[in-house]
Amino acid sequence: MKLTDIFWPFRSDMDYIERELDRAIDTKEPVLQKTSSHLLKAGGKRIRPVFVLLGGKFGNYDIERLKHVAVSLELIHMASLVHDDVIDDAELRRGKMTVKSKWDNRIAMYTGDYIFARALMIATELSNPQIHKILSRAIVDLCTGEIEQIRDLHNWNQSLRNYLRRIKRKTALLIAISCQLGALAADATPDVVHRLYVYGYNVGMAFQITDDILDFIGDEKKLGKPAGSDLRQGNITLPALYMYHVSPDARCFRELVKENRVDEMIRVIRESEGIQVARRLAERYLTRAAQALTPLPDNKSKDALLKIARFIGERQF
Amino acid sequence: MKLTDIFWPFRSDMDYIERELDRAIDTKEPVLQKTSSHLLKAGGKRIRPVFVLLGGKFGNYDIERLKHVAVSLELIHMASLVHDDVIDDAELRRGKMTVKSKWDNRIAMYTGDYIFARALMIATELSNPQIHKILSRAIVDLCTGEIEQIRDLHNWNQSLRNYLRRIKRKTALLIAISCQLGALAADATPDVVHRLYVYGYNVGMAFQITDDILDFIGDEKKLGKPAGSDLRQGNITLPALYMYHVSPDARCFRELVKENRVDEMIRVIRESEGIQVARRLAERYLTRAAQALTPLPDNKSKDALLKIARFIGERQF
Repeated sequence: MKLTDIFWPFRSDMDYIERELDRAIDTKEPVLQKTSSHLLKAGGKRIRPVFVLLGGKFGNYDIERLKHVAVSLELIHMASLVHDDVIDDAELRRGKMTVKSKWDNRIAMYTGDYIFARALMIATELSNPQIHKILSRAIVDLCTGEIEQIRDLHNWNQSLRNYLRRIKRKTALLIAISCQLGALAADATPDVVHRLYVYGYNVGMAFQITDDILDFIGDEKKLGKPAGSDLRQGNITLPALYMYHVSPDARCFRELVKENRVDEMIRVIRESEGIQVARRLAERYLTRAAQALTPLPDNKSKDALLKIARFIGERQF
Repeated sequence: MKLTDIFWPFRSDMDYIERELDRAIDTKEPVLQKTSSHLLKAGGKRIRPVFVLLGGKFGNYDIERLKHVAVSLELIHMASLVHDDVIDDAELRRGKMTVKSKWDNRIAMYTGDYIFARALMIATELSNPQIHKILSRAIVDLCTGEIEQIRDLHNWNQSLRNYLRRIKRKTALLIAISCQLGALAADATPDVVHRLYVYGYNVGMAFQITDDILDFIGDEKKLGKPAGSDLRQGNITLPALYMYHVSPDARCFRELVKENRVDEMIRVIRESEGIQVARRLAERYLTRAAQALTPLPDNKSKDALLKIARFIGERQF
């Protein structure tokens, strides 16, 4: 199963969102126009808009209202990627040159700022102040998560709770509010809005944990980066934390850490129980995601949300 | 006359805003807490909050409503300074170490993002969506102005219009909306809200033009930087543009530009008519600022706004 198969019933609305994304970044300033459309054309799965539309199906689905939320969330995601690339000094993303490498760091920073602000401006087309509040809060959390990630780099003494809080802020919250705001903008009942938030949060956690697993064991060609890239950059994720703190072989592993033998650490983690532990945790989140939807009416959208959860559990890259 | 004298009647409310600024950046994340309060303690004139309060005096003045706007605008200004320091690679601002020098560029970027988002989040305490729209639009314009400034660096062929549009986005708009949003949050009439916007826009333009003049002729000690810093960085401002395009001595000046003799360019500009031309333009903006207020009722706030306009015309650093 591919994600595009799951989205198939919603493809015409997704095409419409794509055109709206184009319009959203339209500006007379030629540099910003170029950097923003470069970013947009670099692609991405547009998973946040998909969640918005799926959430909207549980209320009065109106694409003219939902589009503002969908575009806003995708732009927030895009802006955070541009700033990440500055920080990571990344030359490529999804096989395309990053804004910071094609232009420079200064341009990349202001392009990110511009897109963040654009995102919030577009959301103000909807007059519900609760939506504005949730969106600006999401950016606050996103930035806090990024700072936490920098702070926790190379820190082996961080707890599992630290890790979970970080991936919540970095990834899960934005997916949670995509589902939530879709339902909210469609005037779904508070219970439905809440359930979609819970679904999104759990799917987001599972998504990031899976991402962190695949960084160790995924196909290097498909991932487009060497195995263990996170660890090489000092980003200590669940499988590594397990090896260091919990595994029966922790003592040996700590020796490797002490001597900074990264290649060996990666080899050990790839074959360790840490991977299985992380998989089981991801599955637990996915189960909770599905449970949150149980009381909701059966419809195509619920079906798609459940399929997405299964897809995340099974994905290989 | 000093600015603090003008603000004297509003000092207790300004103290309150200062405490609210402290609260606004409060976070459990220790790095963000340190960077943000470092920024706050580095000071600043808090001119945007002052304008908000003064604007609010033309409606139903309620500090509990106005504080959200005042804090939000000061934070937007602060965030833009943090990002500017990353771009300019600045070690000091107002004599204090910048976030990028005390911590690093990554921390400075996310601190800026965090404060931008905090600013918008605080504004959502007010349920008037028009306020959210104006604020997010202001950040869009601010970023566009920053990109324009980068684009126009070292470009001697830019027009006066280019320069004016750039300083409008970079400086004048944020001051304009400070006045406007103060009145708007106090439910002043649309005419009053508009007049305050026009006042703020013109004061902001005069402020930036004066800044650009002082960069050439101000007291180096008081400014805390050598004369002609803007030009040295490639930022071509009104006095320089006049010399290049309009002055009877333009031909000689262009030779200096061609040979990149920056010290001589600065010396020529300091003694040129370009300074007078810029002064006259600033004065025209200040006259228009005062005119915008003429039909408004006489009160302490109007008095202060007129004094601020005069202060800007006379300031030496």
